[in-house]
Amino acid sequence: MTRADTERIRGHLDELSVIGSDPRGGFSRLVYTERERAAHSLFRRWLDGYGLTTSTDAVGNSFGDLAGSEDLPVLMSGSHLDTVYQGGNFDGAAGVVAAVEIARILAETGGMRHPLRVAAFAGEEGARFGAPCIGSRLMTGAFTEHTLKQLKDRDSVSAWDAAKSVGLQPEQSASARWDPADVSCFVEIHIEQGRVLEARNHTLGVVHTIGGSTRVELTFEGRADHSGATPMWLRRDALVAAAEFISSVERRAQRHATSVATVGTVSVGPNSLTTVPGRVVLGLDVRDIDSERQRELTETLLDDALRIAAGREIVITARQLSDQSPVVLHGTVQNVLAGAATRQGMPFISMPSGASHDAAHLAKHVPTGMVFIPCRDGVSHAPEEHAEPEHIAQAVDVVVDAFRAIDEGATV
Amino acid sequence: MTRADTERIRGHLDELSVIGSDPRGGFSRLVYTERERAAHSLFRRWLDGYGLTTSTDAVGNSFGDLAGSEDLPVLMSGSHLDTVYQGGNFDGAAGVVAAVEIARILAETGGMRHPLRVAAFAGEEGARFGAPCIGSRLMTGAFTEHTLKQLKDRDSVSAWDAAKSVGLQPEQSASARWDPADVSCFVEIHIEQGRVLEARNHTLGVVHTIGGSTRVELTFEGRADHSGATPMWLRRDALVAAAEFISSVERRAQRHATSVATVGTVSVGPNSLTTVPGRVVLGLDVRDIDSERQRELTETLLDDALRIAAGREIVITARQLSDQSPVVLHGTVQNVLAGAATRQGMPFISMPSGASHDAAHLAKHVPTGMVFIPCRDGVSHAPEEHAEPEHIAQAVDVVVDAFRAIDEGATV
Repeated sequence: MTRADTERIRGHLDELSVIGSDPRGGFSRLVYTERERAAHSLFRRWLDGYGLTTSTDAVGNSFGDLAGSEDLPVLMSGSHLDTVYQGGNFDGAAGVVAAVEIARILAETGGMRHPLRVAAFAGEEGARFGAPCIGSRLMTGAFTEHTLKQLKDRDSVSAWDAAKSVGLQPEQSASARWDPADVSCFVEIHIEQGRVLEARNHTLGVVHTIGGSTRVELTFEGRADHSGATPMWLRRDALVAAAEFISSVERRAQRHATSVATVGTVSVGPNSLTTVPGRVVLGLDVRDIDSERQRELTETLLDDALRIAAGREIVITARQLSDQSPVVLHGTVQNVLAGAATRQGMPFISMPSGASHDAAHLAKHVPTGMVFIPCRDGVSHAPEEHAEPEHIAQAVDVVVDAFRAIDEGATV
Repeated sequence: MTRADTERIRGHLDELSVIGSDPRGGFSRLVYTERERAAHSLFRRWLDGYGLTTSTDAVGNSFGDLAGSEDLPVLMSGSHLDTVYQGGNFDGAAGVVAAVEIARILAETGGMRHPLRVAAFAGEEGARFGAPCIGSRLMTGAFTEHTLKQLKDRDSVSAWDAAKSVGLQPEQSASARWDPADVSCFVEIHIEQGRVLEARNHTLGVVHTIGGSTRVELTFEGRADHSGATPMWLRRDALVAAAEFISSVERRAQRHATSVATVGTVSVGPNSLTTVPGRVVLGLDVRDIDSERQRELTETLLDDALRIAAGREIVITARQLSDQSPVVLHGTVQNVLAGAATRQGMPFISMPSGASHDAAHLAKHVPTGMVFIPCRDGVSHAPEEHAEPEHIAQAVDVVVDAFRAIDEGATV
């Protein structure tokens, strides 16, 4: 049985690393730039070499197709090739290189009853336009031509104009829309972007749920006063109120193993060493794999904020920035992946994904699974991001085994 | 007996308000600018009109002298005419206009045995060069020519070059140095810059102590992680640690009525909504009128920071930015001011000054007192800053009465 070739995977990652290497460190291959397009061209060249039929749709998703011996919906795998500003060469890329290796193995071993489709989605990272998963959401219909016109980068360039500028056809966005009936199942291999696998001494995770995320901007309005001339009893310190809230966020989130809640951004006004803070704006991100608990925790935290504020004559305003529900991945796909891992002699853990992925959007329409591999010390979205080609190869073997199982009759 | 003329005070403040009115709001009369110098010229014109002998020293302090009938050290009053960026027209200016009115009254009533000296010190605000009280500290010898060369504004212009550019003689800084033996006592009238007088329904405060201030920059180093992919138990969240510390700062400072402690600045890294904060830098300002308690509170807070950090695998570094001891004002001057207020039928409270002032530097060398008047709603260093000319007039009457008492033999 043909197995994944670690050295080939390493070689492909090395080839890719030449594109978009940032002189300030790391990799910058932002969506709808020449660099992202060059990475897509490289993806297609690899697949052309393995005898697949390659294409790029109107909005920049690239595909490689391997015909099946029967007229069945495709088995699909893929990820993305864009990065954040100064990101790493593994977030997304690991899954694309893995999908290419899956294609090579299946092509070299004569294919399957099902056709295979491997994909590199355009613009999974929200780094440039704020919105993540542009390509996969255009494919599944969650985004439209109109979305591309609305999304703007920090230089006010629209996603539409950016796509145009690299030779794509955003005016034909509708043509990029898939028919989910054409897809039997989708499996994405991705780096974990956390430290759970490492902490638990595992190199493979089968994802059961992609966590939901509710994001809220909270403003605490007190009053700015002279830090020397204002005794403690006369203060309405917005930062002290915000600090009490931040402690409460941690305490509440710790109550359930699957909840995480984070205050990631803080802006203090006037932010002067000799002024009692009059205004603090916090960015809160609440996640869970249980939709009800995600909303319940968010509600509880907003209640906490109001209670803390009321006791301090602080005025609170809350603005919801986004609200994504958790996505439970397909049970049978999980089982097939678990069976494949067991056959491959590969210990694994079943785990949630805290981060969102293209898979979350496909999962709304077709049976979807995800396989996680560790990234060193959990570091991602940074130049130090690193994953072992050996771990990618192991994941490839598991997915090939799972695809063969489905092809041989496992029901999904 | 000639009393302070509220309308004249109002008129002088109005005249002054023409200089340095900022189109963005408020007043910008920064040290060593043409605007500050224009305010000093106006100060001298007023005093020339009342028959005083006026002068400006090499570093920009301006004086008006009224001869006494005997060869005695001067009775002195004054404040400053510079402002912060977009500040108000009362911080400093109220005390200078008050001193001018003191001079008018004493000049029109034939003077005293003691000579009178009224002063407008250069650059009391630290807004431009970081260091406050440039003029008074050059006069008392705490700053030298060398200091002027070292201090730089945000455009890297040195205080030396700035002083030169407005026609001063920084190379003759030494000539601006006073002989404290020439001064019998100094009294500064100033707006409170807080809300204690208002909260207590008083319009006059006799300051007993100018609070000390210890400023520390504290860095909390944890690790930045993905907010979705990192469960609570794997986090080393620098912001949660900092929040616990901010709560502790409030709790500790509340233990003594005279202590105040403020975290006024916060900088979070990477400050991303989807990243657990890896690094937080706080600016801490600890004040008290008791030097020992000021240091003790600072120590306790640093201990708290270390304890909080140790429990969270956070690394703390602390850097002291400045450390000013409290200055206890002269007991007899306080008593004389209190007696004068009582004779003038003016209720007052004895209170600390949380903010520092030129008086803090003079107090190290000569008997010094301060009189506070309210500013509306405690607002200062802002365009909305406002004080009532009536309150300035009342303070003038009290200081004139006190100066006469000293002139008639009260010992200071």
